[in-house]
Amino acid sequence: MLATVLYGPGDVRFEDVAGPKILKPTDAVIRLAATCICGSDLWPYRGAQSVTGPMHMGHEYCGTVVEVGSAVKTVEPGQFVVGSFVLSDNTCPHCRFGFQSSCEQREFMSGAQAPYARVPLADGTLVAIDGQPDEDLIPSLLATSDVLGTGWYAADAARVQPGSTVAVVGDGAVGLMGVLAARQMGAGRIIAMSRHKSRQELALEYGATDIVPERGDEGVARIRELTGNVGADSVLECVGANESMHQAINCARPGGSVGFVGVPHGVELNGEFLFFAQKSLLGGPAPVRRFLPHLMDLVLSRKIDPGKVFDLTLPLEDVAEGYRAMDERRAIKTLLRV
Amino acid sequence: MLATVLYGPGDVRFEDVAGPKILKPTDAVIRLAATCICGSDLWPYRGAQSVTGPMHMGHEYCGTVVEVGSAVKTVEPGQFVVGSFVLSDNTCPHCRFGFQSSCEQREFMSGAQAPYARVPLADGTLVAIDGQPDEDLIPSLLATSDVLGTGWYAADAARVQPGSTVAVVGDGAVGLMGVLAARQMGAGRIIAMSRHKSRQELALEYGATDIVPERGDEGVARIRELTGNVGADSVLECVGANESMHQAINCARPGGSVGFVGVPHGVELNGEFLFFAQKSLLGGPAPVRRFLPHLMDLVLSRKIDPGKVFDLTLPLEDVAEGYRAMDERRAIKTLLRV
Repeated sequence: MLATVLYGPGDVRFEDVAGPKILKPTDAVIRLAATCICGSDLWPYRGAQSVTGPMHMGHEYCGTVVEVGSAVKTVEPGQFVVGSFVLSDNTCPHCRFGFQSSCEQREFMSGAQAPYARVPLADGTLVAIDGQPDEDLIPSLLATSDVLGTGWYAADAARVQPGSTVAVVGDGAVGLMGVLAARQMGAGRIIAMSRHKSRQELALEYGATDIVPERGDEGVARIRELTGNVGADSVLECVGANESMHQAINCARPGGSVGFVGVPHGVELNGEFLFFAQKSLLGGPAPVRRFLPHLMDLVLSRKIDPGKVFDLTLPLEDVAEGYRAMDERRAIKTLLRV
Repeated sequence: MLATVLYGPGDVRFEDVAGPKILKPTDAVIRLAATCICGSDLWPYRGAQSVTGPMHMGHEYCGTVVEVGSAVKTVEPGQFVVGSFVLSDNTCPHCRFGFQSSCEQREFMSGAQAPYARVPLADGTLVAIDGQPDEDLIPSLLATSDVLGTGWYAADAARVQPGSTVAVVGDGAVGLMGVLAARQMGAGRIIAMSRHKSRQELALEYGATDIVPERGDEGVARIRELTGNVGADSVLECVGANESMHQAINCARPGGSVGFVGVPHGVELNGEFLFFAQKSLLGGPAPVRRFLPHLMDLVLSRKIDPGKVFDLTLPLEDVAEGYRAMDERRAIKTLLRV
């Protein structure tokens, strides 16, 4: 089959690769309904993460099961499924504690920017729906696999409560999903930190009540101004850079919480700074599996529309252009039609 | 009056200083019933924190009000009071949020290793008891001012729950109080990490169920072994060194919580490490004022005996020996009789 392989910075190829097979009895193979490009795919694409060999790209997926291994019990061929970008058994102590992204058997999904993909640990990872989804819901279902689940986790880790004041650092797709999540959790005020017109508009549509275009110390000063010099109860860090992480911590009120989901690159935190800041920090790869059934329900009942975050749709064969568009910030997030 | 002044590393003097006066209408002056030396006093004593001029030492205190400023409304001369080592107005948004140690008017207490001390922000800081305490309760009441309140905050920040598994890093006075706090909060298992016989014994008396003498990676391995390879639900970091902080984080289970109260010296945390560790972190100077009424009740009703943490009692004039004994680890914590 033809699929997406990254050879090095800027070098994405759509080329012939071996089709996926059942390698372990706990595997499934799915036919993708759609796939997409993640902000984190841009780290190796931009050379910020080393590429030691050809990488089979893509970890966000939904589609139809075509084959299962002999040990798979909860899904079967023909079912429409969504799975987390983190593969988990959903039975180990970490999974049962709600942190499937730290599963004892954790693997990260790969190879999903393709027509077919192998999903290890299928029973613990995949969630099936009843029947087949309406075609127009596919983008939103796809979003639950990572980008929505990750934004949701940022809000969960930042302990968003009904009525609370939330700041979101980062106006990428994850940040926008963080806005949506905070809204669903009943936040009273949601301040999106964004300087891009199209992203500001989507943030407002998803429930942001205020927009702050300033960054760094100026951004922090604006948040303090907007919150009566108190700071936000909850801050969602959705970038992963050193400046944005410090910005997020400084935007929170003492005793407030920061949920950080941007994969950190060059982030260093000084102990004394953290001590006197007195903010709660929790982050990591999102335990999407914990939230998946609820998020899929919200999509299927049309209560949320996370699929709007895809502002560019391309056929899979044009995946290289999808990367370029996101790299150049011409697109927030690219959906790939399979 | 004669009081304690630190001139430089190892140079503690008991010498004549001006007695405290009401400087602001919100001040009180108290006569100390007893005072003590804090582990954090050892940082400047050991030269790990610079001493730029003579420092009036002492921030843990209880005693009798002798004078109040014109604006003070909640305490009056003759009352027996305890206050937090952090002075707060207890009315600002941070105080009302339970983080009095980040009060907008925050000051840190000083000059309490003396017969008399000035307490700024008396209304927000001091908690009075009915009548006078039994003499034998004075050490325990004194302990609530910082060491117990700080250990309690470590357990609170680490989200100790009934039945949870707790590890305590650091067997100093704060760590031992952390054990006591975890026990009071109903922890099912409390693992004290300690290699000193006398501290192990006190930890067991305060409710520790297991003792782990190993440190660093070996200590982490032992905690994993004791918890079925899962890690502790809650970890209390009561040291403040880089190694102990990393040890604490690594002892927690994914999704678990670390409460850190040791004042960090040389602690640097890498963002990627924190991200993939996926542990919740909250620390800082303890908001003792939040806990003070409850802790004083527990002492007055003789439900807890934190005063046992004082294993050396000296007259105030021998304060220099008190510092030496703690520095050389001959004493866990020195109480000074006034």
